[in-house]
Amino acid sequence: MAVRTPDPDPDDGFGFDDEPSANANPAWLTDIELEQARRRLPMLYVEAVPVITDGSGQVTSIGVLLRSTPLGEITRTLVSGRVRYGETVRDALFRHIENDLGPMAFPLLPVSPTPFAVAEYFPIPGVSAFHDDRQHAVSLVFVVPVTGTCEPRQDALEVTWFSPEEAASDTVSAEMEGGRGTLLRQALAHLGLLR
Amino acid sequence: MAVRTPDPDPDDGFGFDDEPSANANPAWLTDIELEQARRRLPMLYVEAVPVITDGSGQVTSIGVLLRSTPLGEITRTLVSGRVRYGETVRDALFRHIENDLGPMAFPLLPVSPTPFAVAEYFPIPGVSAFHDDRQHAVSLVFVVPVTGTCEPRQDALEVTWFSPEEAASDTVSAEMEGGRGTLLRQALAHLGLLR
Amino acid sequence: MAVRTPDPDPDDGFGFDDEPSANANPAWLTDIELEQARRRLPMLYVEAVPVITDGSGQVTSIGVLLRSTPLGEITRTLVSGRVRYGETVRDALFRHIENDLGPMAFPLLPVSPTPFAVAEYFPIPGVSAFHDDRQHAVSLVFVVPVTGTCEPRQDALEVTWFSPEEAASDTVSAEMEGGRGTLLRQALAHLGLLR
Amino acid sequence: MAVRTPDPDPDDGFGFDDEPSANANPAWLTDIELEQARRRLPMLYVEAVPVITDGSGQVTSIGVLLRSTPLGEITRTLVSGRVRYGETVRDALFRHIENDLGPMAFPLLPVSPTPFAVAEYFPIPGVSAFHDDRQHAVSLVFVVPVTGTCEPRQDALEVTWFSPEEAASDTVSAEMEGGRGTLLRQALAHLGLLR
Repeated sequence: MAVRTPDPDPDDGFGFDDEPSANANPAWLTDIELEQARRRLPMLYVEAVPVITDGSGQVTSIGVLLRSTPLGEITRTLVSGRVRYGETVRDALFRHIENDLGPMAFPLLPVSPTPFAVAEYFPIPGVSAFHDDRQHAVSLVFVVPVTGTCEPRQDALEVTWFSPEEAASDTVSAEMEGGRGTLLRQALAHLGLLR
Repeated sequence: MAVRTPDPDPDDGFGFDDEPSANANPAWLTDIELEQARRRLPMLYVEAVPVITDGSGQVTSIGVLLRSTPLGEITRTLVSGRVRYGETVRDALFRHIENDLGPMAFPLLPVSPTPFAVAEYFPIPGVSAFHDDRQHAVSLVFVVPVTGTCEPRQDALEVTWFSPEEAASDTVSAEMEGGRGTLLRQALAHLGLLR
Repeated sequence: MAVRTPDPDPDDGFGFDDEPSANANPAWLTDIELEQARRRLPMLYVEAVPVITDGSGQVTSIGVLLRSTPLGEITRTLVSGRVRYGETVRDALFRHIENDLGPMAFPLLPVSPTPFAVAEYFPIPGVSAFHDDRQHAVSLVFVVPVTGTCEPRQDALEVTWFSPEEAASDTVSAEMEGGRGTLLRQALAHLGLLR
Repeated sequence: MAVRTPDPDPDDGFGFDDEPSANANPAWLTDIELEQARRRLPMLYVEAVPVITDGSGQVTSIGVLLRSTPLGEITRTLVSGRVRYGETVRDALFRHIENDLGPMAFPLLPVSPTPFAVAEYFPIPGVSAFHDDRQHAVSLVFVVPVTGTCEPRQDALEVTWFSPEEAASDTVSAEMEGGRGTLLRQALAHLGLLR
């Protein structure tokens, strides 16, 4: 399991740190309890594919987070994080976009609460297209146009903006964590941009 | 059939005027040919439900056009118009929103080209929920957030902004042209706002 | 909290019994642990709206479960249940349909894994349209045609088949548990059957 | 433009023959009028991706029509055809599936009238992913499970059943008419089967 650098909100990012979080709501689980729950219950996640659009709403670029693992590997991922107890899906989506892209990203959240895709991550590879060795997570995935400036957090090196063609490529797909290259292609298909 | 006041782009609005349009592309039909085609072929339409959202993407108001018919009836309708030969659905949607809501509406067109609903209008009432005595029209319907100021065209008296509850009411529904109250409720359901 | 009659698979139904389940997978939570988790984590659910279709795929009837609570109240609900650790959404959907409608219902599960709606149930009423005083549950909701005979389980009195008009009525809506009348109307809108 | 062998319903297939159709409804266009309209109005189409599912609704095979053009070329296509004046989208879909796959295909038409994709075919290549040198056509595309035996019509050589992997391959994609390889991949993405 990845050991990650501390960050202000450790148990909500895609990295799932074990460091205790001091400001936790008493209703929330401690990190140890959360760790146990991850092995006993499916965890609910939200994920966002950030995009830039032209004036007519057509997507021109797709944003992918580049990050460096503690072992020095470079991987790519999407905006991703857990839904907290008592939190709406919409609020969780907004919180994780702000966490991962910074407060100046100015996302346009979708008007409909229905995701364009549901991604099922299993700890055992091969059950589905998606894999997360720490947990069984079920993720509601949304495409989210951003209109401001994205400033990724400390554990993300940058947001890379790809053209639809690049985002669909085998190269980018192979660099995506946990099978999320499939999710990227599903997003492109949903946008009418997969050839 | 409704006789309507002239407007700059007569054959594309929801009113389907018969006045000749001087600046028509030679590839397009004359108004007489168009009138004949309306009785022989299903016409492709786009419709938009304009909405206002809060900072988290949640819809707070739904825009409905109020207009006066030549007979002095007040009816309500949605942004609506025909897709021209050679025109993309996205361009048609943008054009009709600008036509009906003015150039300062600043619409955020959907990133996905798939409509949330397809409305089938038949000249004979009762075939479907939707009725148009002039034609068989099939309409791709989208929810479109607007961020600017809506200034409806001359044949529309105003854009009325309703709360989700009002928009779902029997009163508003009964005032909508051609069964579009159903479309309004479908939009609210899609937005998770129909109770 | 409702005390319910024992059934063969207590922790998976919509009733969330507290009786120990003897045949639990060791990876699963005990009922006490599950009860604690329900107050700390959002629970992932699936729900199904059973329907009967005619030869052209048009929905003619919508199935709603009628059940009697321990206090003697009659309420209505949908097919509903928790997704287990390690279980796919598709398998959970199939399992709960079989549990609630019997082995001879012969459901036609959807080809796409994306739900037509996501329902968010909160323990505090008013946060969303949906309410569950036992937990924060997020439910992926599907419309599922059934082609066989539905034999509801012991805690359900019957499956009532409503016409689309009846299913959308205020009467039926008011009888639905936890705000699921809204879900029924969302399903009807998705099916193009809400007027 | 392709000249095709006569068939019982020439103006409705994907081939758009010019032969007069004797049994036409007087409200419909003659073939000459239809030919003219194709160059002046967007034509409304439906398309179906036939699939075979396992007991849990998971798609295991995707059906593609193989046909021989008059020039002896072998191409692949989907079930496809025009919506007639006065015909519902659902009826048009059923009619074209029966026309292309035979009366024993036993299709399970979708319960929702909303297509998973809209394909825009333009006579000039490059405007969109889809091309049809005869017309501007806008197609509502559905995934349709079939449960019987498919017997393609005379102008189709066979229905080829591909695994999801094969259907997504560049080889199959390159053989699809008018850019429909893109549509096949969009269908696979919608089904959660595109890797």
